This record gives sequence, structure tokens and C-alpha cells, in this order.
Amino acid sequence: MSARKGNLMTVREDVRVLDATIRDGGLCNNFEFTDEFVKALYETNVKSGVDYMEFGYKASKDLFDKSAFGKWKFCDEEDIRAIVGDNNTNLKIAVMADVGRCDYKTDFLPKSESVIDMVRVACYIHQIPAAIDMIEHFHSLGYETTCNIMAISQSGTEQITQALEMLCESNVDVIYLVDSYGSLYPENTSELAKLYLKTVEETGKKIGFHAHNNQNLAFANTIETLSYGVSYLDVTVQGMGRGAGNCAMELLLGFLKNPKYKLFTLLKFIENYMLPLKESGVVWGYDVQYMLTGQMNRHPREAINFTNAKRKDYLEFYHALHENEG
Amino acid sequence: MSARKGNLMTVREDVRVLDATIRDGGLCNNFEFTDEFVKALYETNVKSGVDYMEFGYKASKDLFDKSAFGKWKFCDEEDIRAIVGDNNTNLKIAVMADVGRCDYKTDFLPKSESVIDMVRVACYIHQIPAAIDMIEHFHSLGYETTCNIMAISQSGTEQITQALEMLCESNVDVIYLVDSYGSLYPENTSELAKLYLKTVEETGKKIGFHAHNNQNLAFANTIETLSYGVSYLDVTVQGMGRGAGNCAMELLLGFLKNPKYKLFTLLKFIENYMLPLKESGVVWGYDVQYMLTGQMNRHPREAINFTNAKRKDYLEFYHALHENEG
Repeated sequence: MSARKGNLMTVREDVRVLDATIRDGGLCNNFEFTDEFVKALYETNVKSGVDYMEFGYKASKDLFDKSAFGKWKFCDEEDIRAIVGDNNTNLKIAVMADVGRCDYKTDFLPKSESVIDMVRVACYIHQIPAAIDMIEHFHSLGYETTCNIMAISQSGTEQITQALEMLCESNVDVIYLVDSYGSLYPENTSELAKLYLKTVEETGKKIGFHAHNNQNLAFANTIETLSYGVSYLDVTVQGMGRGAGNCAMELLLGFLKNPKYKLFTLLKFIENYMLPLKESGVVWGYDVQYMLTGQMNRHPREAINFTNAKRKDYLEFYHALHENEG
Repeated sequence: MSARKGNLMTVREDVRVLDATIRDGGLCNNFEFTDEFVKALYETNVKSGVDYMEFGYKASKDLFDKSAFGKWKFCDEEDIRAIVGDNNTNLKIAVMADVGRCDYKTDFLPKSESVIDMVRVACYIHQIPAAIDMIEHFHSLGYETTCNIMAISQSGTEQITQALEMLCESNVDVIYLVDSYGSLYPENTSELAKLYLKTVEETGKKIGFHAHNNQNLAFANTIETLSYGVSYLDVTVQGMGRGAGNCAMELLLGFLKNPKYKLFTLLKFIENYMLPLKESGVVWGYDVQYMLTGQMNRHPREAINFTNAKRKDYLEFYHALHENEG
């Protein structure tokens, strides 16, 4: 389990690329993408050979005011169908459901009636029992499922092992290692990935990785975990995602050797849609404030506030981060 | 030689951090830094515990018109002394000398008369004999020396091994692995680093790494080579350097565990000097065009031209890169 799988020249047939632009990127613009944008991204993903496209969250309408967010926070069946029709393509459709923030018993159709293929359950490590309850429900409805255990850099090996063993007893298909704070280095990311891979070894379950770019390591950590056998890889176009953002799709598609992945269709989308989006004032990506929270293994919320306030007084921010400790 | 040295929690006493901002960053602004900027950077480096500061090139005044460049392309003794005086600090002073582009027999004082501590000889791999001639000259003058073999990603293992063996016979102190095109991944960077380390193992020579950020891997590759025993690490403030730039000093200083390295003094310098420099229109850093040349293991000159022309037609650039092949 400790050897690299494949090498820099060969195709790894088990790889699945998941585009999370609308979901994680939606955290940057309150999910207010135009239908034209989402449709163009969908078509780009189909042409670029991307395996899954995550459309957003299935958030509770009891908990969140529908009028205060773009539609992709809720991912109603008819809204997805307005983009993809019956989705007669090789691209699969995913949505995310947060533990404690979705009405999973009522808001999901049976898979046979839905255009959604996969439900990704996001949780903190202490919510594993609740996540498994959701996973079993989605599995019984006929969906592929993942469990995305967030903020893993703040958990110990013993706790992680126990969580993984609990998930091994469940029907979940993919378990995601999630570097929520962008605080992992390739050296410890790969050790964690090996632990995940070893624990699920006998089960046939797959391991995924979701990076954040606080220390400019999102792509590096992604290809490092890939090299040891992680196969579900989250990316977003130009790394669009909360705070410092994620692993950039263009970096990963240019790296992968499988000819089904095509970079040039994505370049056109970047020109036509991402550059105008940035010009309109939507902000994400690596900057010093995210580096500081990443180095300290902290949630980026203070760095996001610093960014939103258009502050550049990094030294003051450094002081404030240290004062808030202990 | 294949095991990691130390770990993410411990100090590696052999590490030396070299700030190449004025030298590699000078390629972005024609070496036209104000004395105030250079002096503030020097003082920051001293306070931050940086081990070496590279002031620029010692370029031939026969080959280059002195009036067409800032003074740091030439690094006259009196210009360095105007910044550092006698440099009564722990920070050592380095300059770079390119094979074939400097008058090394005439332009260097004996070390006893110079404030310079180290001369870094940059060459392509076919220029190793010329580089060794320069290294022996600088060594005989009393300087520490390095050999920075550029564009290594376009050389084969056999050729690299031969170059390293020739350098092992010389008096060079440090041999640098240089990822000029930003085309290396952590997986092959670490393999190259292991080859360098193994070849010099018996000699007491040190290995350095100089990264470029074309694929957002400059920091990742730097800490990966570090983990296997590379000890001389080039950085620049905010990654300022040709094209996609280099490994950011703030990322590395925040990563290293030796308490002699201090991040907060650097944050103040970024606020006071780097932000205005960027606002004045000096451009560097990761962007799609550099990713494309990096993925193709190509010199970034076309990407630099694309950047300077303020172009954003990535797909057209992709076409042009492919047409120029073969």
C-alpha cells in the first residue's frame, strides 16, 4: 500500500475527476451563477471528459431562506434538468448534502426518477453516525454515495481510523480525505491517504481527495495522493472555491495521461466565462492571509473576512490570529 | 539516501535559505529596484534569519549596455556596499555569474577585498567545463561557489550523472537542481534530488533547489526536495521572478521549524514594498499560459510575450504552442 501506483507516463484507469466549481465556487458568489454559465460549464465538462459534475448543495429550505441564495444551494430536480435535460452523456451528476443542514428524508427522489447520480455527504468527524444514516438512505434510494470527512487536519490518527472503520461497515462507495483548511503538506497528505487506502483495502471502496489552496499546495497534494492510489479527485475551474480555492481543473487535466481528458475545451471556457466572472468582482484564490490560516491549521473564516474587507495589513492580521489562540 | 531526513515537526540544521528576489525578480523589472527597496529587503532578510541574499548578476559590461539596465544586472562592489556597508550580519551576500555572459577573470576582486561571500555560476548542462573553469577561479579568489545547472528537465539521467561526477571533481561547494521551466512534479523532482544527493554523498558538497511556479508546484517541489536532504533553498518574496516566478519566501519561512526564521518581518516588507511594486505594474506569477509551457516542458519565453501583450486568448496560445513543435 505504500508504493506509488502507476507513474508519470501512464494512464490510471481508476481515476475519476469531479468538477466542484458550482458547489465550492458557489461559496464565493452565493451560488448566483447564470444558467448560461452553468450550461456552458456542463458542456465543457462533457467535452473535456470530466467524470462527475457537482451542481451544488441540497440544503434545507426550512433552515435557509430560498430567496437569499442562488438556486444551486438547493439543487431542485427541475433546475438541474433545465441545464442537462435527461443528461444522456458520460458525465455523472453529483450534489452535496451536509449533515444537519438538509432534509434528506423528504428532499430526494428515488434515483430512478432523478437525474442525479451521486450524493456526497459532508460531515465533521464527530458526525459519522449521522452521515452513515444519510448514506444508507441515499444508497437505498439507488444513488452512488460518498462521505466527505471535513477538517481532517484537526483529527488524530486513532479517531480517523475509527471513523474509517465505521464507514467500511456502511454502503458508502467513496470516502473523501478533505483538507478543509489547506494546512496539509504533501508529506502528511500522502501518509493520511495511505491510511485511508489501507483501511478500505478489502472493501472495494474508493478514496477521494478534496484540496484547498491556502499554501499553494492544492494541486501538489492532489497528485501526491493520486500517486498512492487515491482515485476520486475534486477540482474546480481556475481553482474557484471558498477562500484560497481548490485544485485547478486545468492543472489536473493537463497532468493526467488518459486521452479522454481534454484541456483545450476548458481553456475556451476560462476565456469566455471565468475571466468575466473575475472581472465582475468575484474573488477567490491564494493570498497571504490564507497562507497564514493554513500554516496555523485554522478555519479560513478570518482570512475570508480580511479579504472581503479588502484589507492588506498582513502583519496586523498575523497578530490578530495569534491573539485569538489559547 | 531514499529516506526522508527529519520530519514535519523538527529542525533541519543544514538548511540554508537564499533570497533571490533582486536577481530572479530583476528579470521582471529590468533590475530597476530603488536603493530604498533593496535596503529594506536586506534589512528584512537579516531580521528574518535568511542565510543568503543574491543581489543580482555580475554581467559583462562589454556584452550588455550598462545604461539599459538597473545596476543589479552588474552588481558593482560599491553598489552592494552602498546597501550593506561591510555587512556585519549573519546574512551572506551572493551574486550570479552566467557562463558566457560575464568577464569573470577581470570583474571579481579577491574575496578578502569584497563584501560578496558566494558566487553562483549558472550554466546549461553542455557548459559544465566552462562552469568548472569559472568555479575554480572564484574558489581560488576565496569565494563560496555554487553551480546552478539550468533546464535540467530536458536532460537525461546519464548526462546529468556525468555532469554531477565532473562537478564532484571540482571545488564547487553547492550544486543546484534548477527547474527552469517549472515542468517538474514532486514525484520526479524528488527522484532527481535523490540522484544529486547520492552522487555527491562522499564529497561533502551540498545540493540546492531552485523552483519555478509554472504549475503552482514551486513550494511543493521545494519542500519535497528538502525532505530528502536538499539543503540550499532558493526563494523570492511573493515568488517574484521570471514568468510564473519562484518559491515564495513567506511559504517557506512559515514552513521551516527553525526559530531563527521569522515570518512577521517579511509580512511588513510585503505590505510596504511588494504591494506598491505590483501596483506600479510589475507582473509575475502563476497563470494559464505558464501552466501550458510548464506542462509541455518548454521555455516560458512565449508565455512571457503573451503576458506582456496582455493577451488572454489561452486557446489560441495553446494552438500556437503545439504548432511550433516538431
